[in-house]
Amino acid sequence: MLRSATHDPSVVTIEFDDGTTTRFHAIWLRDNALDPETRAPGNGQRLITIGDIPADIAISAAGVVNGDLSVTFAPENKTVTFPADWLAEHSYDRAQSIAFGRIAPGITTWERGIDAPSGEWAAVQSTRAAKRDWLAAVAEFGFAKLTGGPTEPESLLKVADLFGYVRETNYGPYFEVRTEVNPTNLAYTGLGLQAHTDNPYRDPVPTLQILYCLENSAEGGDSIVVDGFRAAEKLRDENPEGFALLAGYPARFEYKGSDGVCLRSRRPMIELSPDGELVGIRFNNRSSAPIVDVPFDKMEAYYAAYRQLGEIIDDRAMGVSFKLEPGESFIVDNTRVLHARLGYSGAGSRWLQGCYADKDGLLSTLAAMEMAQPEAAE
Amino acid sequence: MLRSATHDPSVVTIEFDDGTTTRFHAIWLRDNALDPETRAPGNGQRLITIGDIPADIAISAAGVVNGDLSVTFAPENKTVTFPADWLAEHSYDRAQSIAFGRIAPGITTWERGIDAPSGEWAAVQSTRAAKRDWLAAVAEFGFAKLTGGPTEPESLLKVADLFGYVRETNYGPYFEVRTEVNPTNLAYTGLGLQAHTDNPYRDPVPTLQILYCLENSAEGGDSIVVDGFRAAEKLRDENPEGFALLAGYPARFEYKGSDGVCLRSRRPMIELSPDGELVGIRFNNRSSAPIVDVPFDKMEAYYAAYRQLGEIIDDRAMGVSFKLEPGESFIVDNTRVLHARLGYSGAGSRWLQGCYADKDGLLSTLAAMEMAQPEAAE
Repeated sequence: MLRSATHDPSVVTIEFDDGTTTRFHAIWLRDNALDPETRAPGNGQRLITIGDIPADIAISAAGVVNGDLSVTFAPENKTVTFPADWLAEHSYDRAQSIAFGRIAPGITTWERGIDAPSGEWAAVQSTRAAKRDWLAAVAEFGFAKLTGGPTEPESLLKVADLFGYVRETNYGPYFEVRTEVNPTNLAYTGLGLQAHTDNPYRDPVPTLQILYCLENSAEGGDSIVVDGFRAAEKLRDENPEGFALLAGYPARFEYKGSDGVCLRSRRPMIELSPDGELVGIRFNNRSSAPIVDVPFDKMEAYYAAYRQLGEIIDDRAMGVSFKLEPGESFIVDNTRVLHARLGYSGAGSRWLQGCYADKDGLLSTLAAMEMAQPEAAE
Repeated sequence: MLRSATHDPSVVTIEFDDGTTTRFHAIWLRDNALDPETRAPGNGQRLITIGDIPADIAISAAGVVNGDLSVTFAPENKTVTFPADWLAEHSYDRAQSIAFGRIAPGITTWERGIDAPSGEWAAVQSTRAAKRDWLAAVAEFGFAKLTGGPTEPESLLKVADLFGYVRETNYGPYFEVRTEVNPTNLAYTGLGLQAHTDNPYRDPVPTLQILYCLENSAEGGDSIVVDGFRAAEKLRDENPEGFALLAGYPARFEYKGSDGVCLRSRRPMIELSPDGELVGIRFNNRSSAPIVDVPFDKMEAYYAAYRQLGEIIDDRAMGVSFKLEPGESFIVDNTRVLHARLGYSGAGSRWLQGCYADKDGLLSTLAAMEMAQPEAAE
């Protein structure tokens, strides 16, 4: 509820019931008007362009009507109502967070010691709340396990169906992570893989990856996930200049397959939004190409920061480990969470299938579930 | 060919035959060593991590051998050869371009008056050079037409097959852009659409869009494409402070369908790499959500820049127009080129199919073709 509204031609100042005040500009209010000539009643899409708004838009009247804000715009002589709650939600007259390298709201960073967030196949497939919780874990923590699933090949596609769509690539709709254990060839088959994000040489990167276990009777082969955002936070706190270098210059990544594939990207290891929010990590020793966009006099400091970030990522105190059983899988936010594999050996076999998908579908499915009323049955 | 090489423990300085000199750091050279213990001979992937390189890496010897650089690293006592041509290609000891809002190499911006780049269906499907030229046009200009194709539904999927993979979304693998012309309902069916990029509310956005014409006997309905990079260049030159505002703060985009879809993004209208290269445009009046990340005291200037960018985009001198005939299509780089539709009316029908895909596949296919030898038959 609003207590009062005052205005001059370019700004409305409103006071809420609790005494807080906030201001909105005439142009912002007009552009975001909620009337049916401005916003389509069905899907909420805007029906006007910025050019349809008079350049001399001004507020000719403003007042409180039933606790909400009523504004009349000149020269259109158009009156629009803005609900008090909507205004409170969309206030921009506040101290904007501009902390360099900050973590976005809704994200919780972690390291070793947390219980891996996990859903159960049957529940997630059939129960709204279980599915919502599983999706919410991916949004908040950047990864989640799924246990108790079938051991049929292509089951991973049913995981993607829970929230969105597979992103097909040159590796196919999905790919086999299958290596016969051969002790004579451990250097190739059984060695661990350093924690990494997948396909940094691809732009846009696949923003989700699903790894689904079909066989895992080898010794070792544990999966490890590392929160790249926590690693970046640590680097930021320990070496802010180094963090700024990794965020401030593009790295280069490249993958040349033998089958007509030549993927290259020019993106930073630590990606920030223009106002400093952490939005992505790219880290992959195997596909890092020569870095040529860092000035000569900053290259040694850049490399020192890269080394430090690698040490943080490799620190055993950072990783959450688990060994997938057949029918178990995990999903990672590939813009944030790195995954590694412990070396493995001995008799038995290890067969995973992997695929890529994108966060837009997952976050959309989650947001739509959170907006909807809970189902009566739950 | 190298003429000479000198070194201290941390830097090698080389002189090329033409007298130019450049420097490389010990850590950079060691990380990018090309020997088979560092890079897999098959696919070129790096076999070591940054942590595998000694922290006290240093150059103990450097010299010219057969015109190339030979470096011995301490404490490993490892000697590696770097070809002179490779060093010339990967020099970073140069004035890096840091011009704010600059256009990347290989991109040519344009406005009305250019001939729309175009390929012919049969040639592009069967001839290597025609396909390469068509892909190269998309990379350089951000769009290209394709003429003379079949008029069967789903032909657009064959366009995507030329270079990569469809990105399925909540709109399906592809979607119908089909509107029965109904003069009593022009406000809904026949109105033009302002030039826009698709799905800015999706993160990652689909980076390519294909629009394929199956029927177009209505009057009007012309397609218009606008180079968003040229528009951004104009804004940058006319109003650098406004350009910096649109690049410096995230906008918000949102689409709420009625079918469990709620897509939201927080990304700038003008996206730059961290070192100032223009990498993307998002512009869509219909799905712009309230902008809440711009400080109060900068909001009016932000909106003025937004209006100015809209005016540049709407300027008829910016757009390239064409009317698709059945069997014709065009592809746009959806991170750069905006597309619009003129209003249409009269008898007849207009039926397009659209789908999304991604640039990684297209640029990879192009790069692989450009690296390969030309086919003997061509």
